[in-house]
Amino acid sequence: MASKLSKLSGFPEWLPEEQLVERELCNRVRKVYESHGFTPVETPAVELMETLLAKGVEGKELYGLQRYGAEPDGEPGLGLHFDLTVPFARYTALHLNDLDFPFRRYQLQKVWRGERPQKGRFREFYQFDADVVAREMLPLCCDAEMVSLFVKALKATEVGEFEVVLNNRKILLGLFESLKFQPAVFSELTTIIDKREKIGDEASRELLLALEGGSESQSDELLEAASRSFSAASVGQLREEDFSSDVSKTGVRELQEIIALIPESLRENISVHYGLARGLDYYTGIIIEGRFSQYPEFGSVGGGGRYDGLVSQYLKTSVPGVGISLGISRMMDLILRHKLFPTVQKSCSELLVTVLGEDDRSRCIQLAEELRNEGINVEVFYKSPKLGKQIDYAAKKGIPYVLFYEETGSTLRLKNVNTGEQTEYEGVREAAKAVRRASD
Amino acid sequence: MASKLSKLSGFPEWLPEEQLVERELCNRVRKVYESHGFTPVETPAVELMETLLAKGVEGKELYGLQRYGAEPDGEPGLGLHFDLTVPFARYTALHLNDLDFPFRRYQLQKVWRGERPQKGRFREFYQFDADVVAREMLPLCCDAEMVSLFVKALKATEVGEFEVVLNNRKILLGLFESLKFQPAVFSELTTIIDKREKIGDEASRELLLALEGGSESQSDELLEAASRSFSAASVGQLREEDFSSDVSKTGVRELQEIIALIPESLRENISVHYGLARGLDYYTGIIIEGRFSQYPEFGSVGGGGRYDGLVSQYLKTSVPGVGISLGISRMMDLILRHKLFPTVQKSCSELLVTVLGEDDRSRCIQLAEELRNEGINVEVFYKSPKLGKQIDYAAKKGIPYVLFYEETGSTLRLKNVNTGEQTEYEGVREAAKAVRRASD
Repeated sequence: MASKLSKLSGFPEWLPEEQLVERELCNRVRKVYESHGFTPVETPAVELMETLLAKGVEGKELYGLQRYGAEPDGEPGLGLHFDLTVPFARYTALHLNDLDFPFRRYQLQKVWRGERPQKGRFREFYQFDADVVAREMLPLCCDAEMVSLFVKALKATEVGEFEVVLNNRKILLGLFESLKFQPAVFSELTTIIDKREKIGDEASRELLLALEGGSESQSDELLEAASRSFSAASVGQLREEDFSSDVSKTGVRELQEIIALIPESLRENISVHYGLARGLDYYTGIIIEGRFSQYPEFGSVGGGGRYDGLVSQYLKTSVPGVGISLGISRMMDLILRHKLFPTVQKSCSELLVTVLGEDDRSRCIQLAEELRNEGINVEVFYKSPKLGKQIDYAAKKGIPYVLFYEETGSTLRLKNVNTGEQTEYEGVREAAKAVRRASD
Repeated sequence: MASKLSKLSGFPEWLPEEQLVERELCNRVRKVYESHGFTPVETPAVELMETLLAKGVEGKELYGLQRYGAEPDGEPGLGLHFDLTVPFARYTALHLNDLDFPFRRYQLQKVWRGERPQKGRFREFYQFDADVVAREMLPLCCDAEMVSLFVKALKATEVGEFEVVLNNRKILLGLFESLKFQPAVFSELTTIIDKREKIGDEASRELLLALEGGSESQSDELLEAASRSFSAASVGQLREEDFSSDVSKTGVRELQEIIALIPESLRENISVHYGLARGLDYYTGIIIEGRFSQYPEFGSVGGGGRYDGLVSQYLKTSVPGVGISLGISRMMDLILRHKLFPTVQKSCSELLVTVLGEDDRSRCIQLAEELRNEGINVEVFYKSPKLGKQIDYAAKKGIPYVLFYEETGSTLRLKNVNTGEQTEYEGVREAAKAVRRASD
């Protein structure tokens, strides 16, 4: 009785050699996050549905949970988290008295969104976040550090040339206010600005005019402002005077202050674009987005920003935060489609012990144990066919060495699978040393 | 407007210092798995509901997914996986032609079960699995390796004294047959034997008698057999002759052969118990279970076994497998309740750069960058209060060093937070070397 076998669209899984690429990618980012003293935290994949609905995502993208075949039991509705920021804010508020502030954590977990799958867009995907939150006051040097961290993390991935675009939600907010849009449509306005680059100015203008009380002059002025950007070299040209509203002026000043606190060596990838909006609605200050320049079709591969109200919604005190998020699964899609990383090795084994006959097996197992005690990863072949077959297996898996077990004495003969060269070593320690040297 | 804040029962999350314990625990197990050449693989948390329902779990423990507020759209039913073996079998069958066999993988992921939460039992929890599958034939040396791996992994956790209990489903199956139980109740019989230790012989007998066609002599004989166990020292006393059925005899012979292929140094923790049954119904040969001797109330902290039909159900060829699984979240509960691991450090930072005034900040940031380039994890304090406050922060977080930034020259003054000792170093490289040396 054959069961159905099918790949679920939008739920990626990798072959072993691809999985090793994802591990390497995550390790590169983790190293950067830890070098700034961020510490790992995880939250459950499952949150109260009301926690998820409170902030920043369309309900229909949420996955709710239902125990199979169970009667409704009056338990509160549960759902899968759609990002790591909302759960982190809930975590911070819940454990407020057990945490030391400023609290700096990173978080690598899967999130779920019921979107239509497309290039680089999955229903289950890894995000790799870093955030810092503090009590009462979080100075702008923290925003600057998060931008620096974002630049360094993207650089560390070694995926390719990238650009990091900054803006400040306060600039947009001030614009909305000074152009006399109704506060009720601010959230929609943000969404339109966010889509602008994709749908173009004409389509954006139509959406703006369709808003309650939308006028042509308003729309044109907003789109004009949203088209302005400043490359790394011209970032010094940001001027408060370009805006009439105090809120926008504050936004510009904050950006200037933040950029001044980013080490110069990291600034070349950074630009400011007044048209950057970001989709999620919890941001209140700086917003950040990253793209790989050669692969514009993958869109944003990460982003973040300042959120002053996300933790505080649960509390009576203020707990502002700022964070970044890297789209690991989207990067993986990009890396695999463009074959950017080598995928030679399919195994963690560094050495295969060949077995010439089943009578030798116990002694081969013992020898493998001794080699493992010297710190190398060893596999004993599971059957005892002709040597050629066993060497083929090592070659196919990318295992660099095979060991020929012989009963006589303590001499070990190793074959380098890539070069074909054979070398004899006196004892387990010497052999292990040679393998370790090769894999360093 | 304060939102609701509550901890979801059965969905554990850890404080930063506890998270570092979980990371250490997982690293210890990972190191053992990799030393045997197992390679990491992940599968989506989400599978087709029919894949999950096909094998081994009660439907009501499954969590199904439903897009929030969405109309039923005719898409196939999705659910969260309840273990890692069923998805791994589906993965192996789906990617059969892209994998090299024997295929050895490990998998560390969360799984979900809608059980009533209790001590060591969660609704969302980590399992850490290792499995090997092959085409057509998987020799018993693979079962032996998985038992060895299980023993070594439990030892590596350093949680405490442990015992590993083995049995063979064939022994139970042969007993059921020779005692003339109806094949229709074999699955129920396994469940009763599995519960026997918890509910006692009397209650078990009642359950057996309640089965269709159950008789007193049958029940007594089965319970008698299920009570027999052999400690490490007496494992040599396993005798085929104790059983009348050929299937049971084969089961005994397999156990003997498997134990003979386990290095002697790993055998002392192993015993055989004919009453071990394991809950999941996909096992067909050896079954394995581990317990920490001092903490019987936590029950099994891991287990596994041979499954000959799990991959093959999707295919026309045979792909037998054998694997083990460690209950990481259950171990975490045990470790935290009994304070078995030290939880001193709350941060990945190795050094805090203190900031005496905001005018110094840019230079402190630059200095931190230089120290990170030397490979140490550095945090710059986010404000510039009195030094004492900054040192207190380092002490609270378990950051071992603080650096006092001074403008004069290249001399760096470090304070060891634990001892209070201050030392001066000539240049960034020397200072970094001292910090690295201390954390090694």
